Amino acid sequence: MKKIEHIGIAVKDIQSSNNLFAKLFNAQPYKTERVESEGVSTSFFQMGDSKIELLQATRPDSPIAKFLEKKGEGIHHIAFEVEDIFAEMERLRKEGFVLLNEEPKRGADDKLICFLHPKDTNGVLIELCMQIRD
Amino acid sequence: MKKIEHIGIAVKDIQSSNNLFAKLFNAQPYKTERVESEGVSTSFFQMGDSKIELLQATRPDSPIAKFLEKKGEGIHHIAFEVEDIFAEMERLRKEGFVLLNEEPKRGADDKLICFLHPKDTNGVLIELCMQIRD
Repeated sequence: MKKIEHIGIAVKDIQSSNNLFAKLFNAQPYKTERVESEGVSTSFFQMGDSKIELLQATRPDSPIAKFLEKKGEGIHHIAFEVEDIFAEMERLRKEGFVLLNEEPKRGADDKLICFLHPKDTNGVLIELCMQIRD
Repeated sequence: MKKIEHIGIAVKDIQSSNNLFAKLFNAQPYKTERVESEGVSTSFFQMGDSKIELLQATRPDSPIAKFLEKKGEGIHHIAFEVEDIFAEMERLRKEGFVLLNEEPKRGADDKLICFLHPKDTNGVLIELCMQIRD
C-alpha cells in the first residue's frame, strides 16, 4: 500500500457539509460526483497528498443510508492506494483477510476498488483503490 | 491545513492490532509510545506522507477507554498538520468551531495538538497538530 488515498465521511446533507468543510479547510471541494451504482453523491477536498470524500446517500437502500441510520454521521472508511489491486487482493486473501468484493469494482474518481470486512480490521472499513489509467 | 498527519484508531489490544496492521500494510510499526497524560499506549505505521496511529487505553478513565466502551473499536480521530497551531485555532474560533482545548497541549510524537468538538464537524473528531521543532 502506497498512501492514504482518501478518508470517506458519511454526511446527511452534502451541501451544508461542503460549506462546513470549506470553512474547516479554508478551501473549496475540487470535484463533485454522483455514483449511481453506489447510491451516493460525493464531493472531494484535496488535503496534501490525500483527499477527504464526503458521501451523501441518494436513495434509502444505499450502503451510506444504512450507515447513517445505524451509526449517524462520521467516518465511513479509509481508502489506501495500491499499485496493483489484483496482487494486493491476492496477498490479503492469503493473509486471512475477508474481502467484500470477489473482483475489483468501479468506484468514484476513476478507481477500481475493493473493501475488506471490518471484522478483521478492528472495526475499520478499509478500501483498496487503484487509479484507472487511460 | 497542510495534510492528513495521521488517523487514530482505538483498539482493545495493541499487540494483536500491531500484528494485524503489520499484515495489512506488509510493514512493521516504526514507533511505539506511551502518553501518560492521555492514558494511552500508541504505535505508529508510516503510510505515504501520513501515519496510522493505534491507541490502546492504559487506564479505565482515559478518553480511549471511554470511546471503546461507548462505540467499540474503530477510527477515533483524524489529525491534520498545521503550520501555526495558534493562528489556525484563532481562525477556526472565528469561523464558529468549538475547540476542546483553550491552549494547544502536548501530544504523542512531539506535537502540539488541539481537538475540535465533533458536533461541529459531522461527528468526526478532528485534531490539529503542529510538530515541535527543537
